[in-house]
Amino acid sequence: MIDLYSDTVTQPTPEMRRVMAEAPVGDEQLGEDPSVNRLQDMVAALTGKEAAIFLPSGTMCNLIGIKVHTQPGDRVILERTAHPMTSEAGGAGLVCGVLTVPLDGVRGVFTPEQLEAAAYPGDGVHTPPVTLVCLENTHNRGGGKVWPFETFKAVTDTAHRLGLKVHLDGARLLNAVIASGIPAHVWSASVDTVWIDLSKGLGCPVGAVLAGDRETIQRARRYKQMFGGAMRQAGILAAAGIYALEHHVERLAEDHANAQLLARGLAEIPGIRLNPADVETNIVIFDVRDTGWTADELNQAFMARGVRCSVFGPYLLRAVTHLNVSRADIERAIEIMREVLVGQRSSSSYA
Amino acid sequence: MIDLYSDTVTQPTPEMRRVMAEAPVGDEQLGEDPSVNRLQDMVAALTGKEAAIFLPSGTMCNLIGIKVHTQPGDRVILERTAHPMTSEAGGAGLVCGVLTVPLDGVRGVFTPEQLEAAAYPGDGVHTPPVTLVCLENTHNRGGGKVWPFETFKAVTDTAHRLGLKVHLDGARLLNAVIASGIPAHVWSASVDTVWIDLSKGLGCPVGAVLAGDRETIQRARRYKQMFGGAMRQAGILAAAGIYALEHHVERLAEDHANAQLLARGLAEIPGIRLNPADVETNIVIFDVRDTGWTADELNQAFMARGVRCSVFGPYLLRAVTHLNVSRADIERAIEIMREVLVGQRSSSSYA
Amino acid sequence: MIDLYSDTVTQPTPEMRRVMAEAPVGDEQLGEDPSVNRLQDMVAALTGKEAAIFLPSGTMCNLIGIKVHTQPGDRVILERTAHPMTSEAGGAGLVCGVLTVPLDGVRGVFTPEQLEAAAYPGDGVHTPPVTLVCLENTHNRGGGKVWPFETFKAVTDTAHRLGLKVHLDGARLLNAVIASGIPAHVWSASVDTVWIDLSKGLGCPVGAVLAGDRETIQRARRYKQMFGGAMRQAGILAAAGIYALEHHVERLAEDHANAQLLARGLAEIPGIRLNPADVETNIVIFDVRDTGWTADELNQAFMARGVRCSVFGPYLLRAVTHLNVSRADIERAIEIMREVLVGQRSSSSYA
Amino acid sequence: MIDLYSDTVTQPTPEMRRVMAEAPVGDEQLGEDPSVNRLQDMVAALTGKEAAIFLPSGTMCNLIGIKVHTQPGDRVILERTAHPMTSEAGGAGLVCGVLTVPLDGVRGVFTPEQLEAAAYPGDGVHTPPVTLVCLENTHNRGGGKVWPFETFKAVTDTAHRLGLKVHLDGARLLNAVIASGIPAHVWSASVDTVWIDLSKGLGCPVGAVLAGDRETIQRARRYKQMFGGAMRQAGILAAAGIYALEHHVERLAEDHANAQLLARGLAEIPGIRLNPADVETNIVIFDVRDTGWTADELNQAFMARGVRCSVFGPYLLRAVTHLNVSRADIERAIEIMREVLVGQRSSSSYA
Repeated sequence: MIDLYSDTVTQPTPEMRRVMAEAPVGDEQLGEDPSVNRLQDMVAALTGKEAAIFLPSGTMCNLIGIKVHTQPGDRVILERTAHPMTSEAGGAGLVCGVLTVPLDGVRGVFTPEQLEAAAYPGDGVHTPPVTLVCLENTHNRGGGKVWPFETFKAVTDTAHRLGLKVHLDGARLLNAVIASGIPAHVWSASVDTVWIDLSKGLGCPVGAVLAGDRETIQRARRYKQMFGGAMRQAGILAAAGIYALEHHVERLAEDHANAQLLARGLAEIPGIRLNPADVETNIVIFDVRDTGWTADELNQAFMARGVRCSVFGPYLLRAVTHLNVSRADIERAIEIMREVLVGQRSSSSYA
Repeated sequence: MIDLYSDTVTQPTPEMRRVMAEAPVGDEQLGEDPSVNRLQDMVAALTGKEAAIFLPSGTMCNLIGIKVHTQPGDRVILERTAHPMTSEAGGAGLVCGVLTVPLDGVRGVFTPEQLEAAAYPGDGVHTPPVTLVCLENTHNRGGGKVWPFETFKAVTDTAHRLGLKVHLDGARLLNAVIASGIPAHVWSASVDTVWIDLSKGLGCPVGAVLAGDRETIQRARRYKQMFGGAMRQAGILAAAGIYALEHHVERLAEDHANAQLLARGLAEIPGIRLNPADVETNIVIFDVRDTGWTADELNQAFMARGVRCSVFGPYLLRAVTHLNVSRADIERAIEIMREVLVGQRSSSSYA
Repeated sequence: MIDLYSDTVTQPTPEMRRVMAEAPVGDEQLGEDPSVNRLQDMVAALTGKEAAIFLPSGTMCNLIGIKVHTQPGDRVILERTAHPMTSEAGGAGLVCGVLTVPLDGVRGVFTPEQLEAAAYPGDGVHTPPVTLVCLENTHNRGGGKVWPFETFKAVTDTAHRLGLKVHLDGARLLNAVIASGIPAHVWSASVDTVWIDLSKGLGCPVGAVLAGDRETIQRARRYKQMFGGAMRQAGILAAAGIYALEHHVERLAEDHANAQLLARGLAEIPGIRLNPADVETNIVIFDVRDTGWTADELNQAFMARGVRCSVFGPYLLRAVTHLNVSRADIERAIEIMREVLVGQRSSSSYA
Repeated sequence: MIDLYSDTVTQPTPEMRRVMAEAPVGDEQLGEDPSVNRLQDMVAALTGKEAAIFLPSGTMCNLIGIKVHTQPGDRVILERTAHPMTSEAGGAGLVCGVLTVPLDGVRGVFTPEQLEAAAYPGDGVHTPPVTLVCLENTHNRGGGKVWPFETFKAVTDTAHRLGLKVHLDGARLLNAVIASGIPAHVWSASVDTVWIDLSKGLGCPVGAVLAGDRETIQRARRYKQMFGGAMRQAGILAAAGIYALEHHVERLAEDHANAQLLARGLAEIPGIRLNPADVETNIVIFDVRDTGWTADELNQAFMARGVRCSVFGPYLLRAVTHLNVSRADIERAIEIMREVLVGQRSSSSYA
């Protein structure tokens, strides 16, 4: 199976497995796991923040990121298709008790004007205060969109001018770094908290790391405990993260090239709507409305031939490239997808 | 002061004060207040619902309405300027723990297509389920807009087809009834819970009544207790509501005529942007951007001359007509507003 | 019916009804209701606090009192039978998100040693911090117990030494004042927030008033709005409170005398367990285990003859005296209760 | 360092590291991780439940266990020193919104009579319903106490008769199994949900497994996602759990024998209060009040000589045996502790 479901499906490499097996570990709740400590230091340095905390998932990074910056009853501004709105089971509501105020962005990106219009101040009694803006870079449902840096800067500057905190969902921040050439610490300098995911493009089995100032990360430790994210010899997992930060960052460029290759191949298949120029990183979202298939049916047909995408809407499919997918895999995937969609015409051409 | 701040500022009439003073009362937590019981029965009948519950405010009606239909972590769809988003201090988040998904309506009205697009089903694990749609009729921040009945029906039908509950903020439903000629029970037949406010156009001092099916209203009683809305000899307040339902409903037509008069007068003042055709009930929202004043400054100037509006945005003012404002008051208000805004030209005309 | 169900069942007196009917009122959400403002000032003065806020119920006073002093996830210490544990529908959990840590008091009273043992400090990560102690004076389920002032002082001093806030449920604080001779402001000086109920011994239809420092009461205003307690011309209700504070406080001594009379009468009825010395204010709780009746059955039998108590447990009944119950009523009630319980033996004595 | 801080400090054995390094893995959020699936099946079988779910921590097992059985505002009964009261950062309050009702047990064990008295039914409006009882077996703060099976059965039977659910914190259930000879599925048959910890006596680095009926575990999946416990190639961790269930259960008897040895040794040291008969499993809690040291000071002194306990109160220390502590280590630990406490007398005996 050429598995384009997500970059979360990667298997740890043999070398990554080896470093995990040999990792020095301790009880991380006591601050005694050397691998966890080292990983946290690495991510703090990478993002230019004072401190960082290892968590079992990116979803917990978002949950804690929202929690540390807000009080229940506050308004939080984020893009309508941001991960906390679509994919985190409603935790921002149930756990944080905030009022979500989604904005309609273009491929996940909104403007400082939109932010300012939404963030009108409350009267302290009737209108709930806006205290936080959440951004996502790259934006998954925007097709792996990298925020234009000027827009990113304008939005975060506006937020801070209005007295708001900014939390950056950087699940795929390193893809944005590779695609834009702008270092992680530069992106992070404009935000109050930022996290990167280890189990997406970096290819680790488990984990994500949230960074911020020391006081915020100290408060995050209580929520890590409360939400059940405090582990023990988590250095086994952290060791994979250390390895990935050292060996799997630069290679994201290959994933981007493969995604571009895939996009161009798909764009040539009749009925598939997709602009390859929109594919900036490792995510390819395409519209199959004109093929006569629903997204779900088509994905089933792809899977029967050995390619898996994920369904992102009634007529939307998403394909993601990652370290378990080679250029040859992508070429083969395009071939399979073409066969499924234009099979009869193709086979008649053999006659 | 000609007080157009809101229809909440009305003073109880002498006759209303008399019926309150003479009201038979009991301990409403024991179900023993005859006036509360009678009012609840009247509102149940008015809305065609099985049961109703008296509450100290419309905000509590919305809070309980959201609570009885949802679980924490659910998504709730409502218009971006609906009262729970702007004016209820964030209770839907803090108390109900829901994820708010505001839609961009036109003067508070959205379409069944918008609803359906927003209400894509969750997978039961990642995407939080949508369980409730909240509507507001008339829509306050839409300028007292009455929902077109066909749109209202299409949206509520779509909601029910998708398995969602519908809660209607009918703070000013009786204004919609008078303006549209469509009875309250017809509007209410399409929704699961509905409430009317006693302290707005009806002119009572305190209270609102939430109606629904018997089981839902029974569950609402626990939340009334929990949120602190359970009172004792509340019949004093309920008696005003009974009186108002008997004497103050038909007269809302006067408020609507006065609002129309005001709108036409305002529209003729240079610099005020306002389309009188948009004024369907007792609310007049107008844009003062072109007058050279901010909304707040202008309202201060109005107040100095004896008219009060409320500030609805940096350049938006709202004026609301009600039973303490006569046709003559409106004529005088227009005169004052014109004097403030075109004073120099006016006075020069005396030359 | 001689209604000893609770002091909440009182009917407003004709004079109270008159002042309500004539009360000057305004929109209290705008701070413009003169009667509400005056009542708030009176309660602030009575309790020696900077500010006070009128709310529709004592339950809302407790809910907001807990909310303003805590963060979700904090521990709150209170007596096991305190009102928030037994009678507020779970709001401290659902709304405030605190972890309740009830102590086992003696008739509602616990010791500084119990408090200190329970309030061991958290480590900031695992053990949730204790931030608030709630007291109730008089303690309803303790039989209207007045806290011994030295114990009260020792507990509140201990709390403050440990850095905790103290909230006083003073639903019946004025009963404690009358019984102890210690003024309300002296009790209140030891606590951070305190409230009195208007609709219990004071005989008003609706309402309670929460007092504290200015900043805390300012924050309370947002929660009043959020929970649905913000009303409009609430001066109608506040006027009753003003009247009651001026005319119904000293007379609580009569209720206490009547309760003592009732207690002595009940203690002489075979099968009823009750120590009249435990009756310090207007509440009489008695155990009917030895009568052969359950509490519920016995109350039904009493009601059939014209006396109503409330059921407080399988074998516990509570009788409360108040301004609608005269000394003659109490004498008659004792007679009825005796007839029900020793009726057959009584009648056989005629043989 | 002979580390008796907790059984959480164990290092994975070389063999456990090997199976982790070789574990077959997949994306567990897609249900595709064979090691996670196998571990879940093993724990379901072990506890006799229909289904099980792998989670990153025991704290998350308790959080989800409470969440799946309750609604916000419900009352939950548990022992005063149970883990959710003392060590989970207040999550039962912040996340689940329940009202905790702790009972005073004897070493963590309470009686069916205590349960029944606390679980008086609510009236559906004022008194919040009790819906859940949480038990902990062995009970950590009870000194690793194994619930007497008859009491356990009587309490769980009472709970179910009253219509309550029962959640069992079985972090150390396998210690109870080994100590009592009663299989896990027999303990579990009386409860609705049960979990075991992998990272305590079993010696795994990370994780715990919650078991229950299929429907409950399905709902738990949403909360796993929401709270951030959904991982990816978690089979790396699950493989350790599989290994431990196959190789580290029977050996818990050694830990128990070592704890008994330690207890007897400690009991002979003057000033230490401890009854070795109370040590039933791998936890030794002892009172140092009579030694002239505080717990914290004494632990510092122990650590300076190479033994670490954990501080459980101002004068309480806890020592826990586990697979990284041998019989020889225990003998050495007793020697060190004796030296610290009776050092001068000891050394003088060398003279």
